[in-house]
Amino acid sequence: MQKSEISHETLIRVRYAETDTMGILHHAVYPVYFEEGRTELMRSFGTTYDAMEKSGVILPVYNVNVNFLRPAYYDDLLTLKTTLAGIKGVRLRFSYELFNEEKNLLATGEVTLIFTDAKSFKPVRPPQWFTELFSK
Amino acid sequence: MQKSEISHETLIRVRYAETDTMGILHHAVYPVYFEEGRTELMRSFGTTYDAMEKSGVILPVYNVNVNFLRPAYYDDLLTLKTTLAGIKGVRLRFSYELFNEEKNLLATGEVTLIFTDAKSFKPVRPPQWFTELFSK
Amino acid sequence: MQKSEISHETLIRVRYAETDTMGILHHAVYPVYFEEGRTELMRSFGTTYDAMEKSGVILPVYNVNVNFLRPAYYDDLLTLKTTLAGIKGVRLRFSYELFNEEKNLLATGEVTLIFTDAKSFKPVRPPQWFTELFSK
Amino acid sequence: MQKSEISHETLIRVRYAETDTMGILHHAVYPVYFEEGRTELMRSFGTTYDAMEKSGVILPVYNVNVNFLRPAYYDDLLTLKTTLAGIKGVRLRFSYELFNEEKNLLATGEVTLIFTDAKSFKPVRPPQWFTELFSK
Repeated sequence: MQKSEISHETLIRVRYAETDTMGILHHAVYPVYFEEGRTELMRSFGTTYDAMEKSGVILPVYNVNVNFLRPAYYDDLLTLKTTLAGIKGVRLRFSYELFNEEKNLLATGEVTLIFTDAKSFKPVRPPQWFTELFSK
Repeated sequence: MQKSEISHETLIRVRYAETDTMGILHHAVYPVYFEEGRTELMRSFGTTYDAMEKSGVILPVYNVNVNFLRPAYYDDLLTLKTTLAGIKGVRLRFSYELFNEEKNLLATGEVTLIFTDAKSFKPVRPPQWFTELFSK
Repeated sequence: MQKSEISHETLIRVRYAETDTMGILHHAVYPVYFEEGRTELMRSFGTTYDAMEKSGVILPVYNVNVNFLRPAYYDDLLTLKTTLAGIKGVRLRFSYELFNEEKNLLATGEVTLIFTDAKSFKPVRPPQWFTELFSK
Repeated sequence: MQKSEISHETLIRVRYAETDTMGILHHAVYPVYFEEGRTELMRSFGTTYDAMEKSGVILPVYNVNVNFLRPAYYDDLLTLKTTLAGIKGVRLRFSYELFNEEKNLLATGEVTLIFTDAKSFKPVRPPQWFTELFSK
């Protein structure tokens, strides 16, 4: 669909509450960061996830896959690269790369969401304005 | 209002994700446990918070106060004692005591909620069935 | 390795804090439930993850994969089936199935962990007592 | 102790995962934001909480008190004003005010922490460099 890469880099600081007894960023926080990444990617393209939700289309997650390569620690300033990997039918796919300040790759991931009607909770075609926004 | 104490004891196991770099249960998790405590107190009296919400009354939190006396650790089996401390006007107040398996008091707390109309988000009188349930 | 299936069923009640604006259990909570599942599987086999950690072996997560099929809601009583899917070299793999009270399959998942030395943070062979425990 | 006000303003964007079924920022997230607030206040004064922890002094929380005045919503850009309210004996106290983009006051709060030896978990005097840093 898209010709050039549609991506965004978001800075995220690791919170103390997000670490665990091992002293590292807990693995269940990565999907939360990924969600922040797609929020910011959408904002950088002039729209918001909130706007989509208010227009009656929600985006529940269908699949999450994360590979953990190196740990992150409290107060680390991470760079999350979010890439729109594809819109295919009712599916919206993002891929992720997470780096620390030393530019080490900490994790990679993919998240697939389903365009869903907010009332019926049934899959729907993506809003036209949305696909157009990302097809320029 | 109530003659005898209205309380409930809930067992809660500390999850790994809920600990932090200090190796202890993170302080922001205590309000989550307290919320579980009032959910279970209500269930033990034959109703549910979900039922109240579906009847159009929600209970946003107005104040949380927690005193932390001793740390809890991953996999500790805690006993949370939740007490209905009072219904006064639009306010519903619970008090809490959290114990570990050695019966050490780990924390005390209070949470005040406001009976609120789910649509207007304005304070409302508590549903009659609710006050009657706890006044026997 | 194992002859018969090594699995455990854990009951988990959805907390209010774990839901989101869509009114459903947030997707990032599933890995937290999975972690609780393997904690309880280990306990049902007479050991604890805490015991392993105290013996100097930690288990950071290497991969998480979750498929979301149907939403869960606040106060739902879920059944999480955790299965030890394999120990291979330094890797420990669990698979998951999550059901609601109507026995609908809500999600499936897999989590791979790495046996890791708590001090050096390098991969290590699994403790012998651990592999023996699950090979009977 | 301090002559002029020691405070810092931190911008925090509400994450989707932090909202609940009521569609508002869950109340248990506020202490997490407050923790981020004191992390950033310390950084703005040229030190880090991490540095303190690595010097052998940790700061477990002794009391949290939060008043919730107005709800916050997903994607709101909040301003958290963190003020160092006092160092007294082994206690360190911060006060908080949280605002939305319309400058509405959403919440106020206080958090008291205890200077604690990381090994013995006993209260200790605050490090001299710390008190000096904030007494100029």
